[in-house]
Amino acid sequence: MRRELSVIFTDLAGFVKLGLDDVATVTLLREYYGVVADCVESHGGVIDKLMGDGVLAHFNAVSDCPEHHKKSRACAAEIAEKVSSIKVNGKNLSVAVAVGSGEAEVAEFLAGVHHTVTVIGGTVNRVGVALRNCKAGVIDADKPA
Amino acid sequence: MRRELSVIFTDLAGFVKLGLDDVATVTLLREYYGVVADCVESHGGVIDKLMGDGVLAHFNAVSDCPEHHKKSRACAAEIAEKVSSIKVNGKNLSVAVAVGSGEAEVAEFLAGVHHTVTVIGGTVNRVGVALRNCKAGVIDADKPA
Repeated sequence: MRRELSVIFTDLAGFVKLGLDDVATVTLLREYYGVVADCVESHGGVIDKLMGDGVLAHFNAVSDCPEHHKKSRACAAEIAEKVSSIKVNGKNLSVAVAVGSGEAEVAEFLAGVHHTVTVIGGTVNRVGVALRNCKAGVIDADKPA
Repeated sequence: MRRELSVIFTDLAGFVKLGLDDVATVTLLREYYGVVADCVESHGGVIDKLMGDGVLAHFNAVSDCPEHHKKSRACAAEIAEKVSSIKVNGKNLSVAVAVGSGEAEVAEFLAGVHHTVTVIGGTVNRVGVALRNCKAGVIDADKPA
């Protein structure tokens, strides 16, 4: 279905350089995902996918989120603030957050026994590309660079 | 938990350049995901995540898959063959497939209401990095380049 929605992508900057072993990585990701999920859900959004050090979240895609444009921006700022207060080996984490709004397809996929509902389309790609141009902090994919 | 496992990452080469609209993209992804899932499940693997034009699958992570090293290689070759026979606008798709084996953490994550079980660690990262060096066909992350 076609929806007007907002999307957030996050990425931990320099994550591999932290040199954590696998168990420590899982522990850190649990804390990071938890902080991001709290921010997203408190602003009415939904976690779509956890992808290593990245998270995809959407607003107004699978449930109504009035003022999703405004709420997603407030959420992005809060993620940047709260994640960068997490300390690893005495250093603060650095996170890049990209946010954008527009129309996209909200689609259900059944691949073998795997089932998911996700957001697809140019709006989502645009925010994903914006993330690559963001080293830390928040980038708004809808604003000229 | 620590497991000896195999991982496959796939990526559609030149996907954005196909210039498909969002609805056509969903239709294509359904076909692509279906082909990949059939290959993965017929070799005893599990789809972990669908990520736009990419798929992450694992073998021997969440259920026993004897000979996962061998089966994951056979699966990777079959994905490359079958996906590249899908035609879009008269042209065959091009897919890159990276495969690798090793130890990794299999971990359950609960982020807000989002729940997933996924594979984390150096082995998974290594296969993901190998994918970036593969334009089309199969790359084995465990063999010297």
